[in-house]
Order: sequence, then structure tokens, then C-alpha cells
Amino acid sequence: MTTTNLFPEFEALGSGGAYADKIREVTPHNALFDEFNVDDLKQLGPFLQIYRAPAHQVIIAEDDKGDFMIFIIDGAVDVTKKDRSEVVKRIAVVLPGQALGEMSMIDGEARFASCAAIEPTTFAVLTRPALQELIHHQPRLAGKIMMKLVFMLSQRLRQTSAKLVDYIEK
Amino acid sequence: MTTTNLFPEFEALGSGGAYADKIREVTPHNALFDEFNVDDLKQLGPFLQIYRAPAHQVIIAEDDKGDFMIFIIDGAVDVTKKDRSEVVKRIAVVLPGQALGEMSMIDGEARFASCAAIEPTTFAVLTRPALQELIHHQPRLAGKIMMKLVFMLSQRLRQTSAKLVDYIEK
Repeated sequence: MTTTNLFPEFEALGSGGAYADKIREVTPHNALFDEFNVDDLKQLGPFLQIYRAPAHQVIIAEDDKGDFMIFIIDGAVDVTKKDRSEVVKRIAVVLPGQALGEMSMIDGEARFASCAAIEPTTFAVLTRPALQELIHHQPRLAGKIMMKLVFMLSQRLRQTSAKLVDYIEK
Repeated sequence: MTTTNLFPEFEALGSGGAYADKIREVTPHNALFDEFNVDDLKQLGPFLQIYRAPAHQVIIAEDDKGDFMIFIIDGAVDVTKKDRSEVVKRIAVVLPGQALGEMSMIDGEARFASCAAIEPTTFAVLTRPALQELIHHQPRLAGKIMMKLVFMLSQRLRQTSAKLVDYIEK
């Protein structure tokens, strides 16, 4: 398991084991599929690294390379992106239980937006190598994580598309 | 395995086994994660049902309930949605290798948009019960499907969000 310190400037709080209950508590519920149980989160713990960012610190920078996603445990994160005219716009505020950065983790493209802590923010990091290890060694657990990701992406795509459709010319 | 005929008005082409090569050929490639191999698609075949819709037939209707996704094997599908003023707008044209309906399959909410065949269109159907069976009995294969879904949703979210950011007020 890779244990590179991805955020040397932030407080490193170790692996995810000690945060299992907290992660379970904030994870969005999807009644249609199996939920994470206590054993799942015990197995998942070693694959996650926990960090705490001070207020106003950038966690992910637009256009950077990056192969990890983060999951907000507590705090709040501002998501901003430059439009075609390079004007920086706030596109979302992300709260505990939501993920960020999963698009680059999955598709390998550059970061779509920047994320900065609004207040002191604790987050779990899942890297692509850790997810690949999970898929190989804990496929059932990896499937549950992927299900949560699909669920969260679906919800965001519904919201984003619903906003966009009002701007589309007939 | 459920084998309900979901589309009695369309030609039913049986389970996915005979379409394994074709499905593999049109599936988008993601170099960062394992691809489907021949064995995967042999295992997946019985979980899929294949149908062929004539031109101009509605496959999914906005606001309907529905717990399945479709995967386009050949043909083309128009995706339309009503805006806030009930004006119908085309939001996408979906081609072979792309999926539709996965949001409702995963989150259980009503269909976000309508999908109609532009030309005669062959598609594979994966229902939520079939996906749940896959997760329980073939977790590694289910993980690969989920990975493809996350990849496709990520790409669509990037495209949709990139369009939307130009409309957001600073």
C-alpha cells in the first residue's frame, strides 16, 4: 500500500481505521444497494489516508495532474473553476459525506476545478493505486465504493444537467 | 435471473452472450483500469437482455419509473428533456458504446430525460436486480462494470459542468 505523504503541508492523521465510524456516519445513504457495514470500513481503513487542512488552503488545484480523490469527513470546501474568459467562478460548496477529485482519479485527465478549505477540514484520501489494490484484493468492497461513486456522480449529473437544460437553445 | 420482457413492442434478441464480441468492441477504453476480457463478457452475457428498437420509437420516457440502464450496441439515440417552461430540448445524441438510464438504475429516481431511437437501434439492458446479482455472485466483474459507469459519468459530468460554468454569474 502506498503511504506517500500527499499533503506534507497539512496535518497527517494516519490511516482511515480510526475514522471508520465517522466515515460511515457521513456517507450518503442509498437504500437500493447494500450499505457499508462495520467490517467493510475496518477493511477499507488501511487503504485511506486522513489529513486536516487549515482554512483557506488549496487541496486540489485546477489543471494539475492528480490520481487521488478525497472524501470530506468534516469542514467545508469551496469548488471554483475558471470560465472561458479565465474568470474564477464558484461552482459548488462541498460538505461532509461528499467526494471531490474522483473524475481525475478515474479518467486520468487534469483536475477540472480547484478545491480550497473554507474552514479547517478533515478529509480521507483514496489514491488510484489503492483503489486498484482494493479491486484486486477486496472486489466486493471495491464494488460498494464504486456504487457510492456512481450514486454521487449520478446525483451531481442530474443537478448539473437540470441547470444546463434551461440555457440550451431549442 | 429476471427475464421479464421489458420491451414487448421491440424485437427481443435474447441474452447478451451472442453479443459479447460486439459489446467489447464498442465499449470505451480506459487505460488506467483493467479492461473486460473474453471471460468477463461470457460471464456477463446471461445478465443482459438484447433488444432492437425501430427508428423513432421511445426507449425511455422522461419522468417514468424505471430500474434498468441500456447500453447502445448499434444505431443512435436522441436524448431530450423538457426545460422549466416545458419546452422539449435535445440535450444529447448517444452513439454505440455509451449508456443511458444508469442514473435511475442507481438512485431510483424518475427518468431524467427521454430517449428515442433515431435509426434502428440495438441495445443491451442491465436491470438493477441483475446488477445486484452480479455484485453478490461476480463481485470482480461487477466492479469492472461500475468502473466503466464511473468513467462514463465522469466524462459526462466534465462536459456538462464545462458548459454550465460559462453561464454561472461570478
